[in-house]
Amino acid sequence: MNDFWSGAGVDLHLEPDPADGRRSGLERALRDAVRDGRLAPGTRLPATRRLAADLGVSRGTAKAAYDQLVAEGYLTARQGSGTRVAALPPTPGAEAPRADARTGAPRFDLRPGSPDVGAFPVAAWLRALRRAIATAPSPAYDYGDPRGRIELRTALSGYLGRARGVLAPPERIVITSGYVQGLALLTRVLDGAAVAMEDPGLPFHQEVVRRNGKTVVPVPVDAHGIRAGALGEAAAVVVTPAHQYPTGVTLHPERRRAIGDWARARGGIVVEDDYDGEFRYDRQPVGALQGMAPGQVVYLGTASKTLGPALRLGWMVLPAHLVDAVADAKLHSDHHTETIGQLALAELIDSHAYDRHVRACRLRYRRRRDRLLDRLGPRPGVRGIAAGLHALIEVDDEAEALARAEAEGLAVGALGDHWHSPRPGRPQGLVVGYGTPRERAYPQALEALAKVLEGE
Amino acid sequence: MNDFWSGAGVDLHLEPDPADGRRSGLERALRDAVRDGRLAPGTRLPATRRLAADLGVSRGTAKAAYDQLVAEGYLTARQGSGTRVAALPPTPGAEAPRADARTGAPRFDLRPGSPDVGAFPVAAWLRALRRAIATAPSPAYDYGDPRGRIELRTALSGYLGRARGVLAPPERIVITSGYVQGLALLTRVLDGAAVAMEDPGLPFHQEVVRRNGKTVVPVPVDAHGIRAGALGEAAAVVVTPAHQYPTGVTLHPERRRAIGDWARARGGIVVEDDYDGEFRYDRQPVGALQGMAPGQVVYLGTASKTLGPALRLGWMVLPAHLVDAVADAKLHSDHHTETIGQLALAELIDSHAYDRHVRACRLRYRRRRDRLLDRLGPRPGVRGIAAGLHALIEVDDEAEALARAEAEGLAVGALGDHWHSPRPGRPQGLVVGYGTPRERAYPQALEALAKVLEGE
Repeated sequence: MNDFWSGAGVDLHLEPDPADGRRSGLERALRDAVRDGRLAPGTRLPATRRLAADLGVSRGTAKAAYDQLVAEGYLTARQGSGTRVAALPPTPGAEAPRADARTGAPRFDLRPGSPDVGAFPVAAWLRALRRAIATAPSPAYDYGDPRGRIELRTALSGYLGRARGVLAPPERIVITSGYVQGLALLTRVLDGAAVAMEDPGLPFHQEVVRRNGKTVVPVPVDAHGIRAGALGEAAAVVVTPAHQYPTGVTLHPERRRAIGDWARARGGIVVEDDYDGEFRYDRQPVGALQGMAPGQVVYLGTASKTLGPALRLGWMVLPAHLVDAVADAKLHSDHHTETIGQLALAELIDSHAYDRHVRACRLRYRRRRDRLLDRLGPRPGVRGIAAGLHALIEVDDEAEALARAEAEGLAVGALGDHWHSPRPGRPQGLVVGYGTPRERAYPQALEALAKVLEGE
Repeated sequence: MNDFWSGAGVDLHLEPDPADGRRSGLERALRDAVRDGRLAPGTRLPATRRLAADLGVSRGTAKAAYDQLVAEGYLTARQGSGTRVAALPPTPGAEAPRADARTGAPRFDLRPGSPDVGAFPVAAWLRALRRAIATAPSPAYDYGDPRGRIELRTALSGYLGRARGVLAPPERIVITSGYVQGLALLTRVLDGAAVAMEDPGLPFHQEVVRRNGKTVVPVPVDAHGIRAGALGEAAAVVVTPAHQYPTGVTLHPERRRAIGDWARARGGIVVEDDYDGEFRYDRQPVGALQGMAPGQVVYLGTASKTLGPALRLGWMVLPAHLVDAVADAKLHSDHHTETIGQLALAELIDSHAYDRHVRACRLRYRRRRDRLLDRLGPRPGVRGIAAGLHALIEVDDEAEALARAEAEGLAVGALGDHWHSPRPGRPQGLVVGYGTPRERAYPQALEALAKVLEGE
């Protein structure tokens, strides 16, 4: 471990792998530091002479490593201003508009909401892009169908049917730029004034509904999921049946039936947010609600958890009577979703590379979930561990636990941020996301979490 | 010329280039027919035996050509249902939500609104994507800044300054999913009830403003552009100063000043739609209005005309006081625009491949413009020919001219579709887009246009 350029104003520790050579070890350590955000954009690096002296390598080795990283785009070299870290993005999650976002980059990050973006299938996605571009006819570069490309809708139709039990003919699918856009478009075309939403739930999604002209009615979630009897007169209800966010509850079969009955009796719309339905670990996945009531349910899925949020690819499966209205709202919002990413995702699904990737991720996340449970030991009040990328851990005093987490440099979600209206006496807990941390950083993050929980 | 499979229910003429070999000539002719939309998706092709007999080639040659096109994705082969044209998009423009869209695919297409998508720089875009993905750090695949990637905002800042005279610091830029989204987001955050828009103008854009909660006030356009004196109490005015749509007028310098004065005096916002500002043919480009009044003007640009609408990439340059509100509206609409396309466009601009492509397009469109003028001869009432991808051709009787065009199989735009409220006595004309037709089809399209105009 060398803190070799504290003299350059940067406090950085590098851990070059002894298995790498001198030059490639240095390259890799620098690359990781930039990728991880430890070396901030614009940071000036020491001169090669200084670096070589500090590290005990030749100046030629130091220069070669800098040159390589300049060529790769991580660093920039300009006459007069030396070698600097290129303008690159902030650390993962720091910009994600999660209610529990803290300022600054935490040492350990167990905030929920993002997948392991280090697992993005770079090579497979590039292959799919190349193939999509090679076979796209010229008109594919013009304006397209506001519902999205028929290639992707056809591929999703098959995938959603077999993987999620969704009845999804291509003509009932609308491709969106992620989940939030789907929720926004749907909110705009719904008749009625109020949308029922789970309490606790994600405040960001409640705000999206409000911005699009509807009021939000909170409906309590208990150990069986949303209380279907409390839906009342709402025009629609938004639910996360496979893995409720943030409590992790799976909607009970009786509740599923009751929601379907409510929708049929009142003409209400059930909006199914299937944000992490692909990830279920201990038994058969729970099929989508939509398969039970395709005429009442709008199914919303996304590539944000399976591939990466950056792609901004989502899909809606709609009852027939809503398709034209949603497509029209999409047209007047942004014409249609970007075409090349749609064609690439269709390629990925048709070639089964998407299934392979999802399976590999499921294994990885399951191992992470198991390590979390191992480290916590036999602790009561750990919820939602059968699926998804997060768990709810009940605590006696949420504020105290959060203060201890902050002292440990650990960022986690707080259940308290998810109530529509906070009140004394609510259950208290930490919302722990295990998708985000990079593989190497995960054990230390778990240690920090254990320390926080042992402090109770 | 072989109409070799009329027997298969398809009336198709192929023109294989004698310079190609038998097999590759057949492949190319088939590929072009699918790309051009002459062979519709789902069309069943004749059996190889039939094809070989009709064309006088060996059955092996016919089979090899089919196999190649199946491998490329143009055709599909399934046991029992034979070889068919793969599910591909409709002909260019047919789905573009232009007011003048006709049903069915016209023989000749001179509708305005789209660029020559046959000129999309496939190889350069793929290179840029590859480089973007190779250098993107992992966090680039997570949620990002609602304003867009800093790499692209930085690249645009330089490009817009030098190419369009726009004062565009990266922190005042918001990347959008095309022009329409920029207009929608801005409309939502504007104070006031009314937005002034050019009359004639694009009805689709007026509808976008209405959908986002504002009323539209028509302001007449004359030979000097929009009548600045008629702006009145509107919260904002949307203008196309470089090349008014659809009249092609360039906003007169005095009007530019008057609009700036109106904005400063009333606190109004000027929305500059610079949709084809890159394409000016006979003299120096007219700089953007924004450069004169960066505190009052929202500048909207797009890659839809320079690269292709399918990318859904646009940008807003905002006065400082609007940046946060627009970024917040973007966040609640779709988080942010898809990341990989943004990084690729930044690559394209930084490597100057974007400039080279724009220059090459400008030459091509200028030649097309010249051929249009040559074919029309010394005709009065041809407007807007100094710039852009369309011209306005005045006619005595628009309805009659459109009827003649329809009889010729020629699709063109109609000035009459662009008035806020049609009235007798309005000027009449055809809006002729010369960006859309493929290079080979252009001369015939011009002949059809000349015939229509000679019929007066």
